[in-house]
Amino acid sequence: MNSFGKIFRVSIFGESHGKWVGVTIDGCPAGVPITETDLLPDLGRRKAGAAGTTPRKESDIPTFVSGVFNNHTTGAPITIIFENNNTRSADYNAIRNTPRPGHADFVLQKKHNGFNDYRGGGHSSGRLTVALVAAGVIAKKLLNEVKIEATLSEAGGNSDIEEAIEQAIEKQDSIGGIVSCRVSGLQIGVGEPFFDSVESVISHAIFSIPAVKGIEFGAGFAATRMTGSQHNDAITNAEGATQTNNAGGINGGISNGNEIYFRVAVKPTSSTPQTQHTWNSESGTVAPFTVKGRHDLCIALRVPVVVESVTAIALADLQLRR
Amino acid sequence: MNSFGKIFRVSIFGESHGKWVGVTIDGCPAGVPITETDLLPDLGRRKAGAAGTTPRKESDIPTFVSGVFNNHTTGAPITIIFENNNTRSADYNAIRNTPRPGHADFVLQKKHNGFNDYRGGGHSSGRLTVALVAAGVIAKKLLNEVKIEATLSEAGGNSDIEEAIEQAIEKQDSIGGIVSCRVSGLQIGVGEPFFDSVESVISHAIFSIPAVKGIEFGAGFAATRMTGSQHNDAITNAEGATQTNNAGGINGGISNGNEIYFRVAVKPTSSTPQTQHTWNSESGTVAPFTVKGRHDLCIALRVPVVVESVTAIALADLQLRR
Amino acid sequence: MNSFGKIFRVSIFGESHGKWVGVTIDGCPAGVPITETDLLPDLGRRKAGAAGTTPRKESDIPTFVSGVFNNHTTGAPITIIFENNNTRSADYNAIRNTPRPGHADFVLQKKHNGFNDYRGGGHSSGRLTVALVAAGVIAKKLLNEVKIEATLSEAGGNSDIEEAIEQAIEKQDSIGGIVSCRVSGLQIGVGEPFFDSVESVISHAIFSIPAVKGIEFGAGFAATRMTGSQHNDAITNAEGATQTNNAGGINGGISNGNEIYFRVAVKPTSSTPQTQHTWNSESGTVAPFTVKGRHDLCIALRVPVVVESVTAIALADLQLRR
Amino acid sequence: MNSFGKIFRVSIFGESHGKWVGVTIDGCPAGVPITETDLLPDLGRRKAGAAGTTPRKESDIPTFVSGVFNNHTTGAPITIIFENNNTRSADYNAIRNTPRPGHADFVLQKKHNGFNDYRGGGHSSGRLTVALVAAGVIAKKLLNEVKIEATLSEAGGNSDIEEAIEQAIEKQDSIGGIVSCRVSGLQIGVGEPFFDSVESVISHAIFSIPAVKGIEFGAGFAATRMTGSQHNDAITNAEGATQTNNAGGINGGISNGNEIYFRVAVKPTSSTPQTQHTWNSESGTVAPFTVKGRHDLCIALRVPVVVESVTAIALADLQLRR
Repeated sequence: MNSFGKIFRVSIFGESHGKWVGVTIDGCPAGVPITETDLLPDLGRRKAGAAGTTPRKESDIPTFVSGVFNNHTTGAPITIIFENNNTRSADYNAIRNTPRPGHADFVLQKKHNGFNDYRGGGHSSGRLTVALVAAGVIAKKLLNEVKIEATLSEAGGNSDIEEAIEQAIEKQDSIGGIVSCRVSGLQIGVGEPFFDSVESVISHAIFSIPAVKGIEFGAGFAATRMTGSQHNDAITNAEGATQTNNAGGINGGISNGNEIYFRVAVKPTSSTPQTQHTWNSESGTVAPFTVKGRHDLCIALRVPVVVESVTAIALADLQLRR
Repeated sequence: MNSFGKIFRVSIFGESHGKWVGVTIDGCPAGVPITETDLLPDLGRRKAGAAGTTPRKESDIPTFVSGVFNNHTTGAPITIIFENNNTRSADYNAIRNTPRPGHADFVLQKKHNGFNDYRGGGHSSGRLTVALVAAGVIAKKLLNEVKIEATLSEAGGNSDIEEAIEQAIEKQDSIGGIVSCRVSGLQIGVGEPFFDSVESVISHAIFSIPAVKGIEFGAGFAATRMTGSQHNDAITNAEGATQTNNAGGINGGISNGNEIYFRVAVKPTSSTPQTQHTWNSESGTVAPFTVKGRHDLCIALRVPVVVESVTAIALADLQLRR
Repeated sequence: MNSFGKIFRVSIFGESHGKWVGVTIDGCPAGVPITETDLLPDLGRRKAGAAGTTPRKESDIPTFVSGVFNNHTTGAPITIIFENNNTRSADYNAIRNTPRPGHADFVLQKKHNGFNDYRGGGHSSGRLTVALVAAGVIAKKLLNEVKIEATLSEAGGNSDIEEAIEQAIEKQDSIGGIVSCRVSGLQIGVGEPFFDSVESVISHAIFSIPAVKGIEFGAGFAATRMTGSQHNDAITNAEGATQTNNAGGINGGISNGNEIYFRVAVKPTSSTPQTQHTWNSESGTVAPFTVKGRHDLCIALRVPVVVESVTAIALADLQLRR
Repeated sequence: MNSFGKIFRVSIFGESHGKWVGVTIDGCPAGVPITETDLLPDLGRRKAGAAGTTPRKESDIPTFVSGVFNNHTTGAPITIIFENNNTRSADYNAIRNTPRPGHADFVLQKKHNGFNDYRGGGHSSGRLTVALVAAGVIAKKLLNEVKIEATLSEAGGNSDIEEAIEQAIEKQDSIGGIVSCRVSGLQIGVGEPFFDSVESVISHAIFSIPAVKGIEFGAGFAATRMTGSQHNDAITNAEGATQTNNAGGINGGISNGNEIYFRVAVKPTSSTPQTQHTWNSESGTVAPFTVKGRHDLCIALRVPVVVESVTAIALADLQLRR
């Protein structure tokens, strides 16, 4: 199943080398002002183009199929599609015999008995994140007074991001990074104890982003080395403001009115220009292998807006459930 | 909502100081052999008793209410309840005016306009994890050849756990820890790209456990400092075995047949014996405060079996969906 | 799966001859005043006792397990259980070889490979409707200004119900009936076009009641013999009042502010005192057969309160989704 | 929300006068052979053209957006769109002030505060059933050995359908009808007791079809006038064959291996050519009114294939859950 949310429900569809990719947003209230151009700033932030990103460039012009009339949502399901106009499927024929290490090629072939669309990763391609960003813009509109801001705070272990990219280009090897996300203005009481804790729902959404391998809220892993008296955030007024924010704005799974803060680990892109080794099912041996196609050297550069988008989707759903 | 899963669906209910806590497991196939005594080993691992755990001891005897007949599941919903027989509600009257730092007292009061059962944390109490463990035993039965093993690998930043507990007792301050979990024997192809990735579903379940503040799969946060050629796991045979396991057994959100590996950050128990500060709504000032009640000094000691349980629940659901 | 609803979610559990049957209601807001005695009037209406009902009488005293504190809902899941204190399991041993015609004995045995609890129908017993009624009382509280009223309007094809029962007792053969339900005070705009139409959601809930085999809204089957100009309900004021109510208060799946009206067909109880024929798997022949156990001659007498209850559950969920 | 199903999940989107309408099918296994031309026969059965149907004719050519590769499903979400190429939006301007009796115009305007796309019924238009039929074709493929057949057995109360249509054309007034549906080849054990009974799930799907106002299974409403000994279906062999089929192939909510049989009441099209009365919000009076636009005189003619489609969707979901 490729959908998320109970009330504000987002479903994505499409493949890297199909004609379109798209998203349906169900459960959005009527009357939210929205135009196709409202989507462009966040879509632009996700786009390739900068040093360290793929030479495959898509125009990423959204087309509203349904659910929007006279520049407002109508209350009906909203479907948005994006044309794929820059595909080179010939690049991918080799994948079937030599699954790319770190990619889903091998597991998808096994899972779907070879029926998966293997071109460019098919449905599991990062291309689909364009649909997440589109849904995220609408989610952000619903959360109006809430502000979500994600930034790349480290790349390849280096907090000087430009330097990290330069070195990766020089070494011709892909790198990962850490994305930090802060949410302000969220009211007290969003989330539920246990299964629908804010951490559960946000992490569910965040791990939907390809290449994410870790998440920590507030002090996170560092909290495991603190004592209770160091970690506890003293409550300083009747609105629940706290002196410190080691909890990352969440107690018992529920927002406490302070800033929500979490950090996301993005692994290096699997498609490094370096020679690698993989199983060649034709020759029946492990053989050296170089990835074809056009890829990002530091995909983490394009991840912050996707982190913001899925966070907005998760919070819009939690908030509408109240 | 306090339920989890699409096909194998687990719902928990109850409060710390109510008469019973319990769980309903819906969607479990008929014919799984199960008796109340089958639950005792995992329930025992969760129990207090060791140094560093709470003096509140519960008998934790499970009672099958429904769904089990002649020592086998019947295909109908399985409900299991546990009596709370060791509650001291008088301990908790003060909570209403002086919300405990790091606890959900304050947010629950706000969220539910003061109607929440505040005694011992009410529904958000760690007491409810007894229900998770019960459901986990049944989930493990469904996953028969799959083996899930979680251990406490660090406490208070120290890999010598006994020493860490001794120091915490000496300092009279609570500590956290890191739980490592390994899953072997899971077939290739469990999980979906994007929203129902194995990481999404496991992390959703893991963050349901009180005090968890972080999770990382495979190399996790360390992967952000590796290059693609270092991180990629070379595929070495037709079954998809890999030379390294930086991916933690998951590619593109789907199990790849290697060991699933992840690490969970558990914060120090909020209920430290140390004096803390919090807002006193009666006096209208920030005032010093000492937690009453009986609490764990290192809750992380009791978390591994709960990590195993919710992992089993998550994987049973993903596997039944195939 | 035995649960219903997206936001106001009701799950039932238990078997006819188990120790308890019960229900969990998840998603009920905090602060709804409720006591165990509030449930007694509707539970009383469902009880046996009148002519034409089973001699098995249960005390039907509800016990709140969770989610209620100081006589108000707390926002946590509400679990309510009922003891089964009047079971005679010896009556049911024969069922395994001679499945009762019209009952689920045969299909449950096949579905669950013989692992089902066959005593008294097990989980599929009408006994479970006590749990539906309990949940219905809470749903009705949430719908405060909405009034739901169901009555038995025909029994055995006779609108003189007492006479119909007398004749059934005389003939010693079970009979069915028609339950009419009217809902007033529901605001305009509840329900969704297509899959979550008011008719879809109510009919889903109504067919959950054992013995129901038909439902019609407004003019229903009679509408198929009308013309458009006869059937259309002329709108007569700005609030949407209509001159007639052939639509049963629902247009395009959405409530239109007029009375919701529907009729429910209840088949005669399968457990008639008359001799019947069924397959005897021991002898390998069709053989005459008389139902053992204690049963209702006209189960329809006890259905109206259950119709009200599941209607309330369905409408509470639809209303909370808005 | 406009989606249906737990495992085989169908979501529809689009408006009568938008550029496209479409459907996403999530949860369909990989490897099902399917081409766009496979959809044409059922799409053709739904089309207008015969006497008594609308002069608005759409080409109804399906375009696969995703989830199909090399003429087989891939395991990824399947999206199919249809262009709307025959819309006349100018026809509908008047709707805003004079809501059409029997339509959803009035309730949608209230529900969505006037933001709904009112042209041609917007999202609630019967146009959307083209999407249901497309999904139904795929569902039928999954149910291979199961055969679903629906026919119009009565129109305007007349079992001679041609005669009924002629009379309606002569009278220039719309008529309804009864659609009968038979499902053969369904294995024993599909469906669940209570909330997911076969009747619950099928009726939920059937009432998603615009203009449906009633459903009855097996003997249905006639069963209310039978005795238990008349109604019970005697079991005649070890496979559960029954002498009669008053239960319509379903006991206790579960398929019993006999033919599933149900009848669906379709009301007359609201858009009759006759003059009607409705509230005119501009003049503030009840005023005579004639429907503009192009409409069906007997929509029931086009309903059987839609009944088959949603029945297939419902059964595919129930079957995949096992």
